[in-house]
Amino acid sequence: MKTITAADIAAMEKLTRVQFATSLPGVKPVALIGTRSSEGRTNLAPFSSIVHFGSNPLILGMVSRPDVAERHTLSNLEATGVWTINHLHPGIIEAAHHCSARFPSETSEFSATGLTEHFEENFHAPFVSESRFRLGMEFAGRLDIPLNGTTLILGKVVLVQVEEAALATDGSIDLLGLEAVASTALDTYFGITPLGRLSYAKPDRPPTRIS
Amino acid sequence: MKTITAADIAAMEKLTRVQFATSLPGVKPVALIGTRSSEGRTNLAPFSSIVHFGSNPLILGMVSRPDVAERHTLSNLEATGVWTINHLHPGIIEAAHHCSARFPSETSEFSATGLTEHFEENFHAPFVSESRFRLGMEFAGRLDIPLNGTTLILGKVVLVQVEEAALATDGSIDLLGLEAVASTALDTYFGITPLGRLSYAKPDRPPTRIS
Repeated sequence: MKTITAADIAAMEKLTRVQFATSLPGVKPVALIGTRSSEGRTNLAPFSSIVHFGSNPLILGMVSRPDVAERHTLSNLEATGVWTINHLHPGIIEAAHHCSARFPSETSEFSATGLTEHFEENFHAPFVSESRFRLGMEFAGRLDIPLNGTTLILGKVVLVQVEEAALATDGSIDLLGLEAVASTALDTYFGITPLGRLSYAKPDRPPTRIS
Repeated sequence: MKTITAADIAAMEKLTRVQFATSLPGVKPVALIGTRSSEGRTNLAPFSSIVHFGSNPLILGMVSRPDVAERHTLSNLEATGVWTINHLHPGIIEAAHHCSARFPSETSEFSATGLTEHFEENFHAPFVSESRFRLGMEFAGRLDIPLNGTTLILGKVVLVQVEEAALATDGSIDLLGLEAVASTALDTYFGITPLGRLSYAKPDRPPTRIS
């Protein structure tokens, strides 16, 4: 095993440290966050910091960095109170990654990358039509992290759209069938393969595979 | 596409809603959090809410639910200020899942599941010897989420141990070579397959594959 100490981390070049740091959570989610300004300009930005915060109410969080590109997302969602989370499949990873470029605020990442807007009645934010699994979110809170200027945004899930065959009666979503995409660092994308679903864990015996 | 509304979510049975809710982030990380009480009792608990909060200083967060099983982790790391994050490979997913069982606090999940403690000098928390990629963490902050009683724990990465061949000179960690494991919902584990590494995104042209 190679050991990297706090001193080694402090001595890294900036880009090396960012690539290293964003690899440390392991396999991460990745999805396109869709917002629309009060004036009607749509925006898309890839986020890999989407995390479950609770099941009742159904709350997800995401982390906004203190930099220019993502402030379009943060300012739009705070102004309008809604956003969408659009999961990826292999056919749209290049377009999704392209959305991380620093487009000016008057350019919609939809038109710049060829992705298609999809709107639901009475919901201000745009969904990505090409996504097979997408969520409509309502603002539920914001926590600023004084340590480094990042912001945790909390949202309540108010709408889910997923390919019919992917939703099981027990509430599971078939990420394998959807060809869900994972990520690491800032630029690397993965597909997934099955390893198994395990039984509810009990202290007195090891779990068994239930599929 | 199937549409699930807020009313549909509210009408779900509790277990269905939990399975559904924990599927919504998409592909999630999963790792074993290692702690040790002031009295020296070790603890392991699987977490899938590990998220990058910053690269300088190098900060990761994780979410602790307001329930009994995970309070061992929370109370140990608050008492001692340190914990470990131990990434999984396919050979240890059953043991890792077993650690989610509600063991009494006097039982170490290490001895209960057959995983092996590994200690580093001057670091109180136990690493998992079988892990190929593990992090030593120091407490950096805690934010309580009044919305639902969850707690966001922030930690600074002070030590990284990874198989020698998996660390590239540009700071990347080779998750494919490490056979890193991902998860969804409460009970489902995935391997990963390569989809590609994409070039830094520029507004004026689509990204290209750099590997």
